[in-house]
Order: sequence, then C-alpha cells, then structure tokens
Amino acid sequence: MDIEQLQRRLRDFAAARRWEPYQTPKNLAMAMVVEAAELVEIFQWLTPEESLAIADDAARHQHVGEEIADVMLYLLQIADQCQVDVAAALERKLALNAIKHPVR
Amino acid sequence: MDIEQLQRRLRDFAAARRWEPYQTPKNLAMAMVVEAAELVEIFQWLTPEESLAIADDAARHQHVGEEIADVMLYLLQIADQCQVDVAAALERKLALNAIKHPVR
Amino acid sequence: MDIEQLQRRLRDFAAARRWEPYQTPKNLAMAMVVEAAELVEIFQWLTPEESLAIADDAARHQHVGEEIADVMLYLLQIADQCQVDVAAALERKLALNAIKHPVR
Amino acid sequence: MDIEQLQRRLRDFAAARRWEPYQTPKNLAMAMVVEAAELVEIFQWLTPEESLAIADDAARHQHVGEEIADVMLYLLQIADQCQVDVAAALERKLALNAIKHPVR
Repeated sequence: MDIEQLQRRLRDFAAARRWEPYQTPKNLAMAMVVEAAELVEIFQWLTPEESLAIADDAARHQHVGEEIADVMLYLLQIADQCQVDVAAALERKLALNAIKHPVR
Repeated sequence: MDIEQLQRRLRDFAAARRWEPYQTPKNLAMAMVVEAAELVEIFQWLTPEESLAIADDAARHQHVGEEIADVMLYLLQIADQCQVDVAAALERKLALNAIKHPVR
Repeated sequence: MDIEQLQRRLRDFAAARRWEPYQTPKNLAMAMVVEAAELVEIFQWLTPEESLAIADDAARHQHVGEEIADVMLYLLQIADQCQVDVAAALERKLALNAIKHPVR
Repeated sequence: MDIEQLQRRLRDFAAARRWEPYQTPKNLAMAMVVEAAELVEIFQWLTPEESLAIADDAARHQHVGEEIADVMLYLLQIADQCQVDVAAALERKLALNAIKHPVR
C-alpha cells in the first residue's frame, strides 16, 4: 500500500469539494472516532464467538471492511495534516510495544 | 507499506505472548476505539488553529504519531481476524465516497 | 430525577423484551460509546462558535437532547448492572476534581 | 438527583478556574467521548461473565463508578450549554424507545 499516494488522493478529493476549511486535525479526529464507534457497533451485541465468525456472514463482512476503511482514511488525513510519517510511526510503536510487553 | 507482513508480525507478537484468546474482533474493536479516543484527547481543548499547528510542538507531534499507530495496529488486527483485505476495502470505500459526494 | 426509579424502568423494559442475556456491562459499555460518538458527530464539522449556537437550530437542539439521553440511559444501565450508586459516584468525583484542579 | 443544581455547581467550578472559553459543546463532546472510552477500557479484555462480576472487585468497581461519573458530568455540561432539559429528554427518549421496540 502506497500511503503517500493515498494521502495525495484524499487531499485532492477534499480540495475538489472545497472541504479544506473543515479538514483541521481537530475535526478529523472527531470524524475518525465516530467511524471507530461505527465499527464497534457491529460487534456490540455479538458474543465473542459470533464476532470471530463474522467472515461467514457476507453482509457483515463487507460492513466491517467499510468501517475499517473509514477509520483508516481519516487516520491517513490526520497524519497528513499533522505531518506524521505513518510507516515510521508504526515501526516505532511496534518497537515500543516489544519493550512494554516482553515475552516471558 | 506491506500490510500483510505487518499483520503477520502482529499475529506472531500476540502468539508469543499467548494473547490469542483475547484477540476476538469484539475485544479488538473495543481496544481500537479506546486508542481512537486517546487521539481525540490530544485535540479536545485546542482551537482548530492550534490543532493545525501541532507539528510545531515536538512532544505533541510524536504523541499524535503514537496514537495514530495504536489505532492503525488494532485496525490491522481486526481486518486480519475478520479476513478483510485492507487495500481492497480502502479502494472500494474511495469509490463509494466519490459516488456519495460528487464534485459540484 | 429519581435515578433508581429510572433504572427500574430500564430493567423492566429490557426484561419485557428478553434482552437480559445481552445486557452485560461489556456490551452496554460498547453501546454507550457508540451513542457517545453519535453526540460527537453532531459537532464534528461545526466551528466552536456554531456549536455554542446549537439551541437556535430546533432540529439540531432536539437531536442533541436525544443523543445525551441515549448515552445517559446506557450509563444508568451499566451502573445498575455494576451496582454503582450514581449519585454517590458523582459527589465523589466532584470532590476529586476539586482536589485535582485547585482554584489558583 | 437535582440535575439543575449539579449543572450550577459545574458552571461555578468552571468559572472559578476561568475555563469558560474552553467549555464549548464541541470541546465538551470530545472530552465526553474520551471518558466514555475510558469506561470501555475497563471491560475490553474481560469476558462477558467477568464483566458481570465487576462488583466483586473493589478496585474495578470504584473505577467503573469514577468513569460513569466522568461521562455523566460532561453530559450535564453539554446539556447546560445547549439548553437541553435532561429530564425531559430522558422521558422523550424512553417513549421513543417503547415505540421503536414494541413488546412482542
């Protein structure tokens, strides 16, 4: 996945619709958590077991994909606006997690 | 960014710590929204203008990168557990957004 | 507002619909954060100033009331299931906040 | 519980700390969803059964009470700023829920 190309497309998409004034990190973070909650909503009344079997239900499976994409697209826009290098941030976080949770 | 390789690393990381029983999509979605809210928290008392200038503050800039990474790592794990192809889901969503929001 | 009476009504409402198996604190917390995000959604693209003037827009004003109620009703059910005394928890929190944030 | 008296206390608390410029509904909604996610966090890795037994764990029980209070205090402030009558909104929502989910 080419993250910078995706971010360029999202920037062009917003510009073509004159959405730039709304694209502050503050607003994008709000939109992102709204989409995050829509992903939670899919699982809220499911048992853990039912949540594991979601790929067997075509409609739910597609819905999960849409909500994951929604959250991710906002994350990429926040990163773009805040000049965060996503790939570097992911590597850094993985290294921090390995320190925080050593294998016993 | 190689998404499938990242997902493999996350799977190995969880397996080495015997976290698999906890890694249901339901639980991962909860963890994801918690991280999403931690990203929101950075911006909650900032003006829109201050949120735009976050890259000028080194500590906050790094904090934003960490929270973006946290949300994204959980999204990748949810996608992995639910057998969602992230790159395909992103392309599909971009196409849907273009239909939903035509340029006027 | 009589909190215990409200909680009793919510319990009866769920029982009449045979929802008890779904009413775990875990599930209710998920439903609660989904409603919390729906309240956030109302404000996501508004300027701070526009958010202050929401009472002037009858439709939005009513929408805000509905989402506040949704979050609160789930909070009351979580408190009920977890045997939390809401009034006591509020007083305790106000006292903690006064210690945490002294007037300067 | 006297909601209006609580709202007055919250207003006085914010005024004494000169927080009014920050107390827009937009900012308060962000703070509210952050606290909502902190309540979710308590339950994220618990089984449904463990979440039902939270009252048996004194530390967790108190933690749940604190997070419920945090969310509720922000809801009361949003309602205050938006001129929403909380008790009326709750009654209205209960009536709507009864229509939306008839007993079968």
